[in-house]
Amino acid sequence: MPDQRAAANAPAATLPTEPERMTPRDVVIVGGGFAGLACARRLGRSGLSVTVIDRSNHHLFQPLLYQVATAALSPADIAEPIRRILGRFPSVEVLMAEVVGVDVEARRVRLADGNPIAYRRLVLAPGSRYDYFGHTDWEASAPGLKTIDDARRIRSRVLMNFETAEASLDPAEQERLMTTVVVGGGPTGVEMAGALAELARWTLARDFRHIDPTTARILLVEAGPRLLGGFPEPLGDYARRRLEGLGVTVLTGTPVEDIRPDGITLGGEDLPVGMVVWGAGVRANPAAAWIGVEPADRSGRVRVGPDLSVPGHPEIHVLGDAALAEEDGRPLPGLAQVAKQQGEYLGTVLPALVAGDGTAPPFHFKDRGNTAVIGRNAAVFDFGRRQLKGRFAWLLWAIVHVYLLVGFEKRLLVALQWLWRYFTYQRGARIIR
Amino acid sequence: MPDQRAAANAPAATLPTEPERMTPRDVVIVGGGFAGLACARRLGRSGLSVTVIDRSNHHLFQPLLYQVATAALSPADIAEPIRRILGRFPSVEVLMAEVVGVDVEARRVRLADGNPIAYRRLVLAPGSRYDYFGHTDWEASAPGLKTIDDARRIRSRVLMNFETAEASLDPAEQERLMTTVVVGGGPTGVEMAGALAELARWTLARDFRHIDPTTARILLVEAGPRLLGGFPEPLGDYARRRLEGLGVTVLTGTPVEDIRPDGITLGGEDLPVGMVVWGAGVRANPAAAWIGVEPADRSGRVRVGPDLSVPGHPEIHVLGDAALAEEDGRPLPGLAQVAKQQGEYLGTVLPALVAGDGTAPPFHFKDRGNTAVIGRNAAVFDFGRRQLKGRFAWLLWAIVHVYLLVGFEKRLLVALQWLWRYFTYQRGARIIR
Repeated sequence: MPDQRAAANAPAATLPTEPERMTPRDVVIVGGGFAGLACARRLGRSGLSVTVIDRSNHHLFQPLLYQVATAALSPADIAEPIRRILGRFPSVEVLMAEVVGVDVEARRVRLADGNPIAYRRLVLAPGSRYDYFGHTDWEASAPGLKTIDDARRIRSRVLMNFETAEASLDPAEQERLMTTVVVGGGPTGVEMAGALAELARWTLARDFRHIDPTTARILLVEAGPRLLGGFPEPLGDYARRRLEGLGVTVLTGTPVEDIRPDGITLGGEDLPVGMVVWGAGVRANPAAAWIGVEPADRSGRVRVGPDLSVPGHPEIHVLGDAALAEEDGRPLPGLAQVAKQQGEYLGTVLPALVAGDGTAPPFHFKDRGNTAVIGRNAAVFDFGRRQLKGRFAWLLWAIVHVYLLVGFEKRLLVALQWLWRYFTYQRGARIIR
Repeated sequence: MPDQRAAANAPAATLPTEPERMTPRDVVIVGGGFAGLACARRLGRSGLSVTVIDRSNHHLFQPLLYQVATAALSPADIAEPIRRILGRFPSVEVLMAEVVGVDVEARRVRLADGNPIAYRRLVLAPGSRYDYFGHTDWEASAPGLKTIDDARRIRSRVLMNFETAEASLDPAEQERLMTTVVVGGGPTGVEMAGALAELARWTLARDFRHIDPTTARILLVEAGPRLLGGFPEPLGDYARRRLEGLGVTVLTGTPVEDIRPDGITLGGEDLPVGMVVWGAGVRANPAAAWIGVEPADRSGRVRVGPDLSVPGHPEIHVLGDAALAEEDGRPLPGLAQVAKQQGEYLGTVLPALVAGDGTAPPFHFKDRGNTAVIGRNAAVFDFGRRQLKGRFAWLLWAIVHVYLLVGFEKRLLVALQWLWRYFTYQRGARIIR
């Protein structure tokens, strides 16, 4: 390694980082989401040198992102700097950088800044983004909800539509601006539609003089036969009833035919709309392309074995939304708890694997129950054999989500804001921009 | 008024807002800052029809904006929707719009959307922005701190510079990125420099592996002979000592000669810098140009009489930073408390003025004391005859600022976050973007 020798001869102060990037790190983790972060935390006390690479500087608690998009929480309430979370582990370093590929032979991750980083073991946990089923032009008109920027953009648009409607002198334009369509009847779509309805009906109700926010139209559109397809049917029916009770128009069996900046086509009819929020398909981030393997399914995931490694590449693991891991012949769903458990599993077994101590026991997913929230006093839980819905499910949902946040301060702040909102129907983060 | 008669014949639903804009409002207030908001609140129960126009949807508590820029608070903690604050007054309406001018003869405010709004009395409280003394090209490299966007941009830049330095392999580049210059030794500059120093020395101290944030250089540059020129000299000296104790390099008597995206020229020397924050000159927003009067001073303010009206235009009042109001022959300073008291005064006397009941008693400013905060346990207060500095002043500063926030929820959230920060040295809003 000539680079390293050169560095040894140079004055210490002039080349502080060159050797680190050329000397392989024991583990390089791409992605600071649930999977990558859980893995890094487990590895924190292992003594292995670990580098976590993420495009953004923060770990985002995505399950509550819809609350940022609907002005209930601030971005900082659900985002914690990755290097703060991992700061107490001296052998773990964090790099804010964009991965552009992997040099599998040389075992190096290529970064957008041009300086590759070498690894012994590679953990890819890059997550997923929204998929527009080939209609890439829809993305500009119908933002998905994956990042803080997405949430802020949707929040600004929602609030701005009411402002523009209030200032408009054209009733047709006012009606258009107060019509919002949410595409996708899964948990994200249900949560967004419920939160938008509550925002309009309760929070904004008395603040306007020329429009009546309680008459705002919110449509939830699902191509499949019912809402919450991943849940037992009674829970999907319950979600529909509760949403309709909030004034949401639920359209199932209705595929989207076209999306334009100010309109959507459903069932052959054009509907003028103020905003479309996309929560339908999901596509894995390009781990497969980085390492040069064929994606295992249409959503671009990488097939992994029982130890979450890529067949033929025991030194590369893929976790979370980007991985197609099967158990009992069925693929595991793209859920935060799957990602987190995979990260914890790999963080536990990796030290032995790095040391070369044979193989790891297979990963086993322990289903903690699946949940979705519709609104105030209304949520559903599916524990497999048991289901829960209503006020108690909602309380449980709130407690679980406060508990899952990283950091005591964030838990306290979110809990307080929820209590405040429960009693006042107000939302604290009504900022445009 | 043909428009109104046409409206009466048309179906009610088709022309809901046209008549309102053509019928003059009793009072139109431009600006939802301290002055405009205080005025609107006082007018809320007067029965007068009032319209408040602002470019943004929120009232911003600017005295704490530096805490957003330094990742201590979230934007929503110091921003409350104007229409939410005024929602309880049915005769007050809020319009989010951009004012482009005033048709003084026809008594109409021209808006960017093309539909003017008519008034009987006009209150202009558009505030001020930063002035670059003719160097408009400096603005892009050295953002001032006036809006949420400004604060978010500075926060991203500050945090991103540390991230880029950590990832950099070039020591000179690392040093540049970790050098920040604050221009202007007034309260804003002192507060920014102190907060930046605490961020680097305490909050970020242990989170990096290739750089040492505690060695970050922060320079506070002032063209005049000392810091806090508006305060008694001992308080300026105290601020300097405390800042130097935090590791800030204070350069007084040092005018800025040039600012580039990655450097600044001071005393003929070029210094490579990661960021420059501007807190020097202030310029009134263009109320003078809107109403076609000569600005009364170099910062573009409009001279107003004892009742804050514009000479020759008793129906137009100018308040806050955009007004040059004199008392005992001395112009009132551009402070939040001046703006707020002017708004309260005008809101109290306007109903009689609108009714045509003669003249109003003159405005009198009641000085509540001037304050600036340097950092943890360090603030200064100037009460005229008495001065305060140190830990007690800091505690008083914190209590006063929590109290001055709009809304109980924001007070609670800010107080909690400050308590948390006091004990942990952490900051909750370290989000890039």
